Amino acid sequence: MENKKIRVAITHGDTNGVGYEMILKAFEDPMMLELCTPIIYGSPKVAAYHCNVLGIETPFSIVSRPDGIKDERVNLLAVMDEEIKVEIGHRTPESANAADLAMQRALSDYERGVFDVLVCGPDEFTTTEQQGLPLLMSEDLNMAFVTSKLAIKDVAEAITKPIIMDKVTTLHGALKRDLRISNPRIALLALNPKGSHEEEETEILLPAIEELAQKGIQAFGPYQADEFFSTNAHLRFDAVLAMYHDQGMVPFMTIAADSGFKYIAGLPMVKTATLQDARYDIAGKGIADATQLRHAIWQAIDIWRNRQEYDAPMAHPLPKLYHEKRDDSEKVRFAIPKGKDQQKREEKQPAAEA
Amino acid sequence: MENKKIRVAITHGDTNGVGYEMILKAFEDPMMLELCTPIIYGSPKVAAYHCNVLGIETPFSIVSRPDGIKDERVNLLAVMDEEIKVEIGHRTPESANAADLAMQRALSDYERGVFDVLVCGPDEFTTTEQQGLPLLMSEDLNMAFVTSKLAIKDVAEAITKPIIMDKVTTLHGALKRDLRISNPRIALLALNPKGSHEEEETEILLPAIEELAQKGIQAFGPYQADEFFSTNAHLRFDAVLAMYHDQGMVPFMTIAADSGFKYIAGLPMVKTATLQDARYDIAGKGIADATQLRHAIWQAIDIWRNRQEYDAPMAHPLPKLYHEKRDDSEKVRFAIPKGKDQQKREEKQPAAEA
Repeated sequence: MENKKIRVAITHGDTNGVGYEMILKAFEDPMMLELCTPIIYGSPKVAAYHCNVLGIETPFSIVSRPDGIKDERVNLLAVMDEEIKVEIGHRTPESANAADLAMQRALSDYERGVFDVLVCGPDEFTTTEQQGLPLLMSEDLNMAFVTSKLAIKDVAEAITKPIIMDKVTTLHGALKRDLRISNPRIALLALNPKGSHEEEETEILLPAIEELAQKGIQAFGPYQADEFFSTNAHLRFDAVLAMYHDQGMVPFMTIAADSGFKYIAGLPMVKTATLQDARYDIAGKGIADATQLRHAIWQAIDIWRNRQEYDAPMAHPLPKLYHEKRDDSEKVRFAIPKGKDQQKREEKQPAAEA
Repeated sequence: MENKKIRVAITHGDTNGVGYEMILKAFEDPMMLELCTPIIYGSPKVAAYHCNVLGIETPFSIVSRPDGIKDERVNLLAVMDEEIKVEIGHRTPESANAADLAMQRALSDYERGVFDVLVCGPDEFTTTEQQGLPLLMSEDLNMAFVTSKLAIKDVAEAITKPIIMDKVTTLHGALKRDLRISNPRIALLALNPKGSHEEEETEILLPAIEELAQKGIQAFGPYQADEFFSTNAHLRFDAVLAMYHDQGMVPFMTIAADSGFKYIAGLPMVKTATLQDARYDIAGKGIADATQLRHAIWQAIDIWRNRQEYDAPMAHPLPKLYHEKRDDSEKVRFAIPKGKDQQKREEKQPAAEA
């Protein structure tokens, strides 16, 4: 396995929030540079402004183009030329726009292979993920959701067997490949309280759990959320699937508010994020805690390494096997989730097997 | 204020569960008898059986009729003659029936003035209250619910402004009269996650909070449950009103599972209960904790005393006032929630004012 420095892109998030404070604090410790090469997608002027306000002296190297990125440095890649007004603690169109610009630039740089993993700084919109399965992570509890920002009146009809199957399968795949848990145990929370009609439990959740078992996926439940968390049952599972926002967020935030972060599972890219938003209420006060961001960075690095390890034995399947068995279905045994880069590479080089 | 011993009735709950263990453990400490005169509504044979299995030596005095109840004793009032089979740890029709019998007998004895307050032992049905407003209580958090055992799909339409007004008003009255909080602060949780449509928040909860303010009731919110509990905001309020079961039960059980208990607010009778059910899983093992039951007993006694104190200055309103002002609306100022006993007494003695 290669031992090169992993390149970690970090978007600055909302420039009026706690983003820069968390980033600068995370890299105050030079040990972080032994682990990875950070590339902050941000603005040198805004970074300097926050350093000044907060009295933080993290040294960073301004680079204007990706080929200027160097190891052993906190690289700050300038994503915008224009001056932007910083109003710490206030939501402004400029600060939201700055967050967007950094994210867009990072996504296009990822396609060009500039970095390995992406860590998103806090902005007001980090909780709305269009793709992938957001997984809230902490030492003791990993929590995924079937529905997220949905009004309560729309929740029940959004719980269907195909959606449960899809979420659990994605979650299971991520736990295996990204966290290297060989046979993950997933707990499903019940939608309804015990003693109510419990229609979705008997007609959707239980049949889904049964079908998942047939596919070799260990899903358990449905569990009553209050009993589940009050008995610390979450410690017996690798992940918990909540049916809706408050059901999962309330226990997660109670158990792991400080150190928790978010991983967007089910994407070709390795992408983590801070859990908290821009936190205008504490921005510029020097009291923001960088623990979340550090965990998000470490986890992104771990996932990247885990994927390398997981994929390695399957990267070069024994070609003889196909000929000997004359059975294409064997190929399934070597199928691996493919990253975009790999797909592109394969498109350019037609298979030479035949 | 009188200083007589308060008579506390305690129903034995499900006879195959942890009820007797909790009761016997609660009265192991003779100090409890200085505080109150307990009357266990139960079965001497079943009590003796549990004592034997658990090796607990709490002395109790068997009484067959209410006039045999004595202070300084753990009175055990026999509510059933027949033998009942005890199968610890199993739910049987007999054990559920024994719980029912004790409860029915206690309710009819209350009407006859046999005791002052009722504490319900754990059975499988304590969580279903037909009347009153169940309030989960603990040192740091009091939690009431707008809806309880309702399927998620039915929750949104059960949240109406009149129901919110009613629940908050009942809760406010109980906090004032029963807990002697002079100007209670009540937090309402939001029904929907931030960023969803939030229709009920703007159309029901906010207008209700405004109307309550006009009535002099301090209600705040609606708060996002995850943010609320992760920032310990509950410490700033006298009670929290959750919109549905899991939203309130999950944080309550996470914060206060061990010491929490239940108070049924809004009833003429003072009635508390253990929070946990019969707990067949640990019954007969000697590991049940009596803390919940002790708290439920202490709180019932406190509420009884608080009501005496609260009602005392209003028990004899100045009759002159009515004549001087010639305004019946003044009467409102002296209106107090009346206990059944008091109502009955008044029915027999027509008002002598006129």
